[in-house]
Amino acid sequence: MKIGLFGYGTIGKGVYTLVEGLRKKYDCEIVKVFDLPIKREMLGDKLVCDINEIVNDKSIDLVVEVLGGHDLPYEVITKSLSSGKSVVTANKEVVSNHLEEFINLAHKNNVSFCFEASAGGGIPLIRPLIDNVKVNDVNNIFGILNGTTNYILTKMDEDDLSFEEALGLAKINGFAEANPTADLEGLDIVRKINILSSIAFKGNISNDSIYHYPISGVNKQILNNIKELGYALKYVASSYRDGDNAIIRVEPTMVKLNHPFASIKNEFNAVLYTGSTNGDLMFYGKGAGSIPTATAIVADVVSILENRAYIEYNNTRKLSINTIEKVDYKYYIVNDKFVAEFKENVSDEELLSSRFYARVL
Amino acid sequence: MKIGLFGYGTIGKGVYTLVEGLRKKYDCEIVKVFDLPIKREMLGDKLVCDINEIVNDKSIDLVVEVLGGHDLPYEVITKSLSSGKSVVTANKEVVSNHLEEFINLAHKNNVSFCFEASAGGGIPLIRPLIDNVKVNDVNNIFGILNGTTNYILTKMDEDDLSFEEALGLAKINGFAEANPTADLEGLDIVRKINILSSIAFKGNISNDSIYHYPISGVNKQILNNIKELGYALKYVASSYRDGDNAIIRVEPTMVKLNHPFASIKNEFNAVLYTGSTNGDLMFYGKGAGSIPTATAIVADVVSILENRAYIEYNNTRKLSINTIEKVDYKYYIVNDKFVAEFKENVSDEELLSSRFYARVL
Repeated sequence: MKIGLFGYGTIGKGVYTLVEGLRKKYDCEIVKVFDLPIKREMLGDKLVCDINEIVNDKSIDLVVEVLGGHDLPYEVITKSLSSGKSVVTANKEVVSNHLEEFINLAHKNNVSFCFEASAGGGIPLIRPLIDNVKVNDVNNIFGILNGTTNYILTKMDEDDLSFEEALGLAKINGFAEANPTADLEGLDIVRKINILSSIAFKGNISNDSIYHYPISGVNKQILNNIKELGYALKYVASSYRDGDNAIIRVEPTMVKLNHPFASIKNEFNAVLYTGSTNGDLMFYGKGAGSIPTATAIVADVVSILENRAYIEYNNTRKLSINTIEKVDYKYYIVNDKFVAEFKENVSDEELLSSRFYARVL
Repeated sequence: MKIGLFGYGTIGKGVYTLVEGLRKKYDCEIVKVFDLPIKREMLGDKLVCDINEIVNDKSIDLVVEVLGGHDLPYEVITKSLSSGKSVVTANKEVVSNHLEEFINLAHKNNVSFCFEASAGGGIPLIRPLIDNVKVNDVNNIFGILNGTTNYILTKMDEDDLSFEEALGLAKINGFAEANPTADLEGLDIVRKINILSSIAFKGNISNDSIYHYPISGVNKQILNNIKELGYALKYVASSYRDGDNAIIRVEPTMVKLNHPFASIKNEFNAVLYTGSTNGDLMFYGKGAGSIPTATAIVADVVSILENRAYIEYNNTRKLSINTIEKVDYKYYIVNDKFVAEFKENVSDEELLSSRFYARVL
């Protein structure tokens, strides 16, 4: 199988190396790589700088998209699927916005669309969830889904750093991007919990309908107070379905020290959900990093090479998001004078007007 | 697809109910159930009491085996695969003893052999591991793989029960069998870590080559002392590969309170392994119970119905088990006078002559 690769950054290079390793066992080869002309020295004749050189190449059956961003990846994915190529992507932004369209396009063209690396990095998460909801209902999901912010919270706690110092360390160690806004405000987590919730609840969800509150207001004093109360502070996505309604929120969250999430440290991610017959399941692993992400992408490639990838997937449910009363949420609210109190049945207005708050799980 | 079910105990009933639920979406039906004549009232004409009535029925393409035991399941599985039927089983005893034979038989007859429920109950564990080792090497596995003993240790700790009281409670709540010897001595865990290690290390392993030490010597005093030292006591299987050598042991094990295993409570299981490119991965969920196990079995059935199940699997490696020097193991050894000390580089003879011991992880 001839493969076209879009993007030769750190993840793209990892994919290239791992696919080379597969060639001992599988008949596969990356024959063209799309990137900027500056990559000519590394890629030689394999470099193409026009997406159509891959998209219109009838000898290529599989496209791996690791460009990042929205518009160009969207064009690459839709054109590739439409021209009968299977697609593997790690792009949470496009997947969270267009999952139903991609799945339908893949179905119509009898090819595969795989996106394991788009949520939870290197953790095998999406395929087990898809398999799971074929047998039982999943009506809630909790996730620590952002490596950068979990790393910051860990370093603040364990090494007594300020938020800014921990963020600086995350940048030095490659866990935070130069502009970390999407991580710190929760937008990255919004996209990932959207993808997982769409699969679990079998409905389409708009990123705009997911409430998110930034983690960046936390400081050492708040963190220490929370610890003294017997909790760990984590940045958690929570997602519940009740019939055709769902409520999905990304909030600073306090978990008891014996909760499985309390031991999720550094750049690790974890997802916990409850199956109606399966009970609680948790998946834990490296949620970020180029090599773990490349590994998840190449596992998708292998599933296509072995003809095991096609996913029957129907978003038949019309979901209303954020319409359930949050009767049983309890919050820890810090006011401007750094005085904190526990409150229940709090409005979003009150939460948003606080100095900082955390949900108590 | 017509399905033959072997065994109509609690798990078999769960499988029957869940397969009925699949019929809205898939063309599948359990047409015959093998069990004792006493089940006639429940099963009516579907009951058969001779295995050949299913094994020789050419209209049946898929067999689910949940009989328990060894000899009859072995006969059912080999005869079914040989006659061109796919097989799904939860039987860790036969799978741990005959995995290579079953896989080769399935391959030869162009059918599927699935065994997700044979380790880790309802946790999707085996399929992600099989996928994972196609892309990267897994050279160590740690597991809390027995619900009964983890439940006992949790109740001793949290409810201040003696070992015998906690075992009694486990029996009342359906987490321990009438004869719990295989659980308490570690034989159940031996079979499960064997299955996982065979897949991860790509080699055949004899159950006899796996060292195991019973958990039943623990008492409240020892547990409290371990807790005061800042550890939780768990019954852990550990498995390491180094080249063609491997060392696999099932031992009482002390983990720091912030280790992910410390928060695995009650009947839950967890498996932690490290991929060479993926990093640490952990899977957590209900390791026992009829409904979680039935869910894993039916997920295997769905993968066969969707034609996604066939596993390419080659046990090409000749492994020598338990031949690595355990240079870096540290033990907590309790002598006959209940005096404890930490020691390194301890011989198995010294461990076996202690009152009780735990490995320090």
